[in-house]
Amino acid sequence: LMLTATLQHKIDSKTKPIGSLGLLEKIAIQIGQIQHTEAPTLSQPHIIIFAADHGIALQGVSAYPQSVTYQMVYNFLQGGAAINVLAKQSDINLVVVDAGVNYLFDPHPQLLDAKIGMGTQSFLQANAMDEVALNNCFKAGQAIVTTLHQKGCNVLGFGEMGIGNTSAATMLMSALCQLPIADCVGRGTGLTDVQFTHKLSLLNKAKQHHVKVTEPRQALMAFGGFEIAQMVSAMLQAKAHNMLILVDGFISSAAILVAYTLQPSILNNAIFCHLSDEHGHLNLLNHLGVQPLLALGMRLGEGTGCALAYPIIKSALAILNDMASFESAGVSNKV
Amino acid sequence: LMLTATLQHKIDSKTKPIGSLGLLEKIAIQIGQIQHTEAPTLSQPHIIIFAADHGIALQGVSAYPQSVTYQMVYNFLQGGAAINVLAKQSDINLVVVDAGVNYLFDPHPQLLDAKIGMGTQSFLQANAMDEVALNNCFKAGQAIVTTLHQKGCNVLGFGEMGIGNTSAATMLMSALCQLPIADCVGRGTGLTDVQFTHKLSLLNKAKQHHVKVTEPRQALMAFGGFEIAQMVSAMLQAKAHNMLILVDGFISSAAILVAYTLQPSILNNAIFCHLSDEHGHLNLLNHLGVQPLLALGMRLGEGTGCALAYPIIKSALAILNDMASFESAGVSNKV
Repeated sequence: LMLTATLQHKIDSKTKPIGSLGLLEKIAIQIGQIQHTEAPTLSQPHIIIFAADHGIALQGVSAYPQSVTYQMVYNFLQGGAAINVLAKQSDINLVVVDAGVNYLFDPHPQLLDAKIGMGTQSFLQANAMDEVALNNCFKAGQAIVTTLHQKGCNVLGFGEMGIGNTSAATMLMSALCQLPIADCVGRGTGLTDVQFTHKLSLLNKAKQHHVKVTEPRQALMAFGGFEIAQMVSAMLQAKAHNMLILVDGFISSAAILVAYTLQPSILNNAIFCHLSDEHGHLNLLNHLGVQPLLALGMRLGEGTGCALAYPIIKSALAILNDMASFESAGVSNKV
Repeated sequence: LMLTATLQHKIDSKTKPIGSLGLLEKIAIQIGQIQHTEAPTLSQPHIIIFAADHGIALQGVSAYPQSVTYQMVYNFLQGGAAINVLAKQSDINLVVVDAGVNYLFDPHPQLLDAKIGMGTQSFLQANAMDEVALNNCFKAGQAIVTTLHQKGCNVLGFGEMGIGNTSAATMLMSALCQLPIADCVGRGTGLTDVQFTHKLSLLNKAKQHHVKVTEPRQALMAFGGFEIAQMVSAMLQAKAHNMLILVDGFISSAAILVAYTLQPSILNNAIFCHLSDEHGHLNLLNHLGVQPLLALGMRLGEGTGCALAYPIIKSALAILNDMASFESAGVSNKV
């Protein structure tokens, strides 16, 4: 509490009207609180892209074939995807994790092997994964974050890739927020009306099968995917290491919803980088009671929102650390 | 038209669902159109801070004394203001212009002398400036931009400093949008309720005196200020040189409103960097039919919104220029 007052006073003494930098001021104070310091800094920023496949993808819930998951992993490794371009612009390191893609990759220096399987089972009439798989997801997510933390990283963005994973995220949100599927579902990569109607009806059918699922671990087993479960664990580990957590769009937010259900204080460490155009994301942010930093009409995932928000977050700390005070600059304060 | 189709096709062939990068895609296409190329680039970005004083400031419309204008100019020159910190973060050069501050500055390498006078007259019962002053403002704004253009700059942010200038901007908006003062006025640097009531009543009184003012040049003479008039001219000159125009908050938007009334096509070259918390800004953006890039609850001016938006604008071009296509990356397109 005293630190909060100190941080607030430090910002209020800067040469600007009180409160006139809006969200930048709130972000600076939040990061100061996370790091227990008046002079917070961000070091070795990383975005982790968790990739995995989903059994439900074979039932026509996506506009793209399942093979796009592994093809996009190659695209990440070759530097051609949106997240490569945006992370480079924002000076953020990328880590690509094979959490369970339906493809056997050759070893690659930038690809982290945390494969749980060749994709989850379809959750239409079964669980996406069993408890052993879930436990392995949790171990993998923890280990990845602890390694980065030990290297000096204190800010992590959470992105993902997995054809079908808006469906898994919708099911998680519906179960944990206790909202109808219709409030949680969207067009993902861009479904037509007919395809969207099919997705909605399929997910409602799946909901009937899993109607009793309301606990977070149970929900992860029921709906998956491997990448989301590893994100949940990685986020919890980032919180345990007192790191700043950058949440991307719908899938990333569904992951922190699960983590939040297990540990509500995780939200203190999280910045919600953008409001996705995926229908359901606004409801999810409202359920969590959080405000997104950007709203650019994006719906891509991969951590792209984190990369775009990061310069603004860095700027918030620069304001706190580098701006002159009324006293030091010799500027008159309010009359 | 053919260029627009080419740009759209280039973006749609990138490894991402159609439209999934939202506003980034629109910005990339806009800048391609401005520069008449499929591969637009931004070079030598500058933010110009036009500073001047206002006679109306002596009638208690601001929470700060008039002397803060010159003190903040010194703060800009010493590097301690918010815009210094944010422009540095975004790798943008700053130019500070004395358009008519009520103070005689010693020469300084970073201060551009375009002084029209020691501040405008109060517009309460007279014109803020005469036609000679307005013409000199226009000459100064043109010259400043042409010099930067000749140095290779093709993107300009427009910031300002001037105690009392939300009042001038309110009068300009009310006159040119034909809206009541109440729809255009705000709390500026942070007025109390009592101070705000005084400002509102004062500006309504001024409106009575200038009730026939509806033309843009007439409005600039009536209400000022020198910094706003120089911004109008500088924006028009930026348009003439085919530059990208970054509009900041309420004052900067009032300036482009005047420029737009003189030359509507200027909006093709403009990006509205953020929605200010200053009441009236949203109405102004709606009147212009434009969408702001950011909404961070800021109300500081100085060009701070331009500096924060700039990395996103750079990222939009990096997407257009550097991302892989489905073909080049070997990724399957929609089924």
